[in-house]
Amino acid sequence: MSTTTEIGEVLARLIRDVPDFPEPGIVFKDITPLLADPVGLEVVVTALAAVGRDQAGVPVVDKVAGMEARGFILAAPVALALGVGFVPVRKPGKLPGETHAVSYALEYGQATLEVAHDAFGPGDRVLLIDDVLATGGTAAATADLVRRCGAEPVGLAVLMELGFLDGRAPMGDLPVTALTVA
Amino acid sequence: MSTTTEIGEVLARLIRDVPDFPEPGIVFKDITPLLADPVGLEVVVTALAAVGRDQAGVPVVDKVAGMEARGFILAAPVALALGVGFVPVRKPGKLPGETHAVSYALEYGQATLEVAHDAFGPGDRVLLIDDVLATGGTAAATADLVRRCGAEPVGLAVLMELGFLDGRAPMGDLPVTALTVA
Repeated sequence: MSTTTEIGEVLARLIRDVPDFPEPGIVFKDITPLLADPVGLEVVVTALAAVGRDQAGVPVVDKVAGMEARGFILAAPVALALGVGFVPVRKPGKLPGETHAVSYALEYGQATLEVAHDAFGPGDRVLLIDDVLATGGTAAATADLVRRCGAEPVGLAVLMELGFLDGRAPMGDLPVTALTVA
Repeated sequence: MSTTTEIGEVLARLIRDVPDFPEPGIVFKDITPLLADPVGLEVVVTALAAVGRDQAGVPVVDKVAGMEARGFILAAPVALALGVGFVPVRKPGKLPGETHAVSYALEYGQATLEVAHDAFGPGDRVLLIDDVLATGGTAAATADLVRRCGAEPVGLAVLMELGFLDGRAPMGDLPVTALTVA
């Protein structure tokens, strides 16, 4: 098991600040050096998976949902670590068959996310995993999609929270875990 | 360890045919039921990771590259299983900083993939992972990106090959492993 200090050191060393991306004045938090580092990848997946376990280390979730596209990178290994299934939450038009869809506001315009209508069983306990919590729009929409399937979102765990954007507000009572806050 | 017969049974049971998606006349191979099944996910990741090991089970690759977006779902856990880093190969404009880019022809128009310019070190042995091998355009472009970084693609492993599209042809001498052929 990694300690909180060890995780903090790894994240500080392997997350790269890229100024003026995707537009001037924005500092982009680039996680690709972290993903490319075997220790970094393992430490992060282990820490995120711990959110889906009780104090005895027993998994207490039935599914892990990951948001397209970067959320897939962390959510799939977390599902595997917990021994549960993975559900992709996708951009519109990517999933075949019947879906549930939720739209949410962006700064300009709106975005839509979809999930297969039978992705979760009734009462399934679902852990949401993404790389970054920004405004919370994506995560709140994902929690809504889980509820529309009759399942229960039990928490959101992210690698990094952009604290100044207050992304926890749209999450309501859903517990949020961030491995680091920028 | 799962036998080939066990893998075949799991794949046949958990990959769903969806007719007329994304357009009339196409039968879409939907892997979401497989990903949502804990045994299915584990069996597939274990089998794909085996491609990156020698006969003694020792990892013989330095990095795993996954193609946006569905490739991320399998490539990241394979990297973790092998104890090596994961590199995302992305659609244009998603990666900050300096990148290498390769464009390739589609049936109508073209597509471009990008990778961080320092994603691979010189001589890195890189395993490419995707969900489906169709025409091979994406995989061949990814192999080119790896070579542009001075690294060496050592194989492509996919969950499913659409055999009638002859996606192996553009791969040249690169070894291709598919867990199942449709």
